[in-house]
Amino acid sequence: MAVGKDYFPEMYPVPGFKLGTTSAGIKTSGRSDLVVMEIAAGSSVAGVFTKNAFCAAPVQLTKAHMEMAESLFFVTNTGNANAGTGEQGKADAKIVCEKVAEISGVATEAVLPFSTGVIGELLPVEKIVEALPAAHAALSESGWVDAATGILTTDTRPKGASVQLKLAGQTVTITGIAKGSGMIKPNMATMLSYVATDVVIKKALLEKLVSKAVDASFNRITVDGDTSTNDSSMLVATGTSGVELNELSDAEQSLFETQLNQLFLSLAQQIVQDGEGATKFVSVEISGGKDAAESLAVAYTVAESPLVKTALFASDPNWGRILAAIGRAGINELDVDKIQVYLDDCLIADKGSRAASYREEDGQAVMDQDVLSIRIMLNRGDAVETVWTTDLSHGYVRINAEYRT
Amino acid sequence: MAVGKDYFPEMYPVPGFKLGTTSAGIKTSGRSDLVVMEIAAGSSVAGVFTKNAFCAAPVQLTKAHMEMAESLFFVTNTGNANAGTGEQGKADAKIVCEKVAEISGVATEAVLPFSTGVIGELLPVEKIVEALPAAHAALSESGWVDAATGILTTDTRPKGASVQLKLAGQTVTITGIAKGSGMIKPNMATMLSYVATDVVIKKALLEKLVSKAVDASFNRITVDGDTSTNDSSMLVATGTSGVELNELSDAEQSLFETQLNQLFLSLAQQIVQDGEGATKFVSVEISGGKDAAESLAVAYTVAESPLVKTALFASDPNWGRILAAIGRAGINELDVDKIQVYLDDCLIADKGSRAASYREEDGQAVMDQDVLSIRIMLNRGDAVETVWTTDLSHGYVRINAEYRT
Repeated sequence: MAVGKDYFPEMYPVPGFKLGTTSAGIKTSGRSDLVVMEIAAGSSVAGVFTKNAFCAAPVQLTKAHMEMAESLFFVTNTGNANAGTGEQGKADAKIVCEKVAEISGVATEAVLPFSTGVIGELLPVEKIVEALPAAHAALSESGWVDAATGILTTDTRPKGASVQLKLAGQTVTITGIAKGSGMIKPNMATMLSYVATDVVIKKALLEKLVSKAVDASFNRITVDGDTSTNDSSMLVATGTSGVELNELSDAEQSLFETQLNQLFLSLAQQIVQDGEGATKFVSVEISGGKDAAESLAVAYTVAESPLVKTALFASDPNWGRILAAIGRAGINELDVDKIQVYLDDCLIADKGSRAASYREEDGQAVMDQDVLSIRIMLNRGDAVETVWTTDLSHGYVRINAEYRT
Repeated sequence: MAVGKDYFPEMYPVPGFKLGTTSAGIKTSGRSDLVVMEIAAGSSVAGVFTKNAFCAAPVQLTKAHMEMAESLFFVTNTGNANAGTGEQGKADAKIVCEKVAEISGVATEAVLPFSTGVIGELLPVEKIVEALPAAHAALSESGWVDAATGILTTDTRPKGASVQLKLAGQTVTITGIAKGSGMIKPNMATMLSYVATDVVIKKALLEKLVSKAVDASFNRITVDGDTSTNDSSMLVATGTSGVELNELSDAEQSLFETQLNQLFLSLAQQIVQDGEGATKFVSVEISGGKDAAESLAVAYTVAESPLVKTALFASDPNWGRILAAIGRAGINELDVDKIQVYLDDCLIADKGSRAASYREEDGQAVMDQDVLSIRIMLNRGDAVETVWTTDLSHGYVRINAEYRT
């Protein structure tokens, strides 16, 4: 189940960035599960990684390799997260990198490994090594759509976004894919994303850009409050357009950054829309908070409340559960008499109780939609924060009771 | 659905404490929903209340009345929480107190009101007022069983505990009832509890005892992480036995306190066992934490993880999800290589991965039980903490998607 229309956009190639996808037979379904990406020499590469203390073997190796050499390849397998696999897991991830290096004639440290899927099973290294030549042979700048499918696990849809814009009179491109469906929560999620652009961006600046973009996108979504051991969000600047971000006017730099952030947000929202068992796509918008921290505390307490989420599943405009969630968010000296709660534009609660103007049929009409907003005005400051979430459905329980992560 | 056998204990009366139950017709089912309790003059009364910022009207009035006069009556309705009802809610709660006062010939401030049920609907004052004489007429020291049923909402079972012990050569009694099923989480839960003893205990000491007992019981359980606007836990010492706690030997004082805490814990555990949709009763035991705070952070992150809870529902010994939850608990400088995870006595994870000795059938045997423990050894200090929780089942989603709280 997923919310909204199943639409996959046109994916503009990014010169200097190739993707090759195949099936290594890790997934019993025979679906594609192995993706190699090749990055032209001279590109900049930056990433943001899981903060989970149980950081999976491939994430550890990716971070180490980025310190040691120019990154020229990403290799991603699904079906197995290579997490909770100890020393053997690190050795296995390294063997995969060595094989990519051997096929491509690059140093092992130039290869960054990524894995997603079942936790705690040893990586099926032989299957991957055997399938790598096929993935490598498939490398193509037009490989985005196949790769978008090849990185999926419990996702029901591929997730992609692509944009072209004019900078300094030239057309430049930003294109990206992501995967993720459950274990989705700030810092970060069972998610992988790969975004590339042909703009010239130095590594230090690229690191800032990806941090900022992730913070406003993948770090603002929640499906179940769980976070994974494998999350990685990569940003590559191949520079093949010759347009240097640093040398653009302020307005054009700002335009690029806005488009980049928008693309990350689109990928993040596609993950929520495809949240496990999701039947609703809900933005929880807090305004009038004293600061970002308390606004986010309220937003996440509401967005992750099982009672709010089951009410959303039931299309029940249950403002009492929303108030109860706000009330337990741990906000200092919260004056509940100042709070307003809206469903879209319908004021449902005011001054700690049902709004005088509220009519049940108006709240019901909003709740009957697939896509809606819960808007909470705290009226005690200027901070504004939004997070995106889903409902809690029978589908969520079914998927997670049946799927062995 | 509920875990374990449906057993209701023998309830020893507490001289000086009477309970009367009737049906006011608030619940459409016609089930009993109105309970009056009478406390002999000269008793001590203490309570612990919800920390939710949206504190319901009856809770506000109960706290105010306790400041103003000796408490002689509790009046509890179910089916309607009188929460999110603003000024009208406070006026309604007061009318109910006035009616009890009028029937009984006491001051209005001697009556403490409690409500649980649907949030945000006005209290059906007329129905309650009309039924109060019947509840009052039913007052009896042997009214515990009826009252235990009369305070329920989505609970599938009444919850009670009762113990007699010898102190200073005399038999004294502690007896209590509780309700709660969802919205169960520390500080506190959609729960009400009423415990009475005939020991003589001064108010100041009684307040300490109830705080300590609640902290180790109702504040250590979680079903869905949600907390309500109405939670109240009351402790009454009628003193009719003439045995004064203060004058007992240290050993006897300690015995009494242990029994009191044990009784609170029993009520709390009965709530978890009857958790909404629960098919498992799980203790999450943390040892070797640096302090209580980090031990509880790990315990609650594991106990509230939807991925852990759905794995429990599936009887899946999924240690990877447990490790992932520990890893995101926000513990400073956690050395994952030092951690062991057991299911009961079966070591499943060690040094960040599957334990070498682990056999899947052993983990499966533990998971197949209704009652089990997840034991996590952090090995970085001496703190030990336990919380109790349930799985996340289709039943939970069904109950909360269908029930209008």
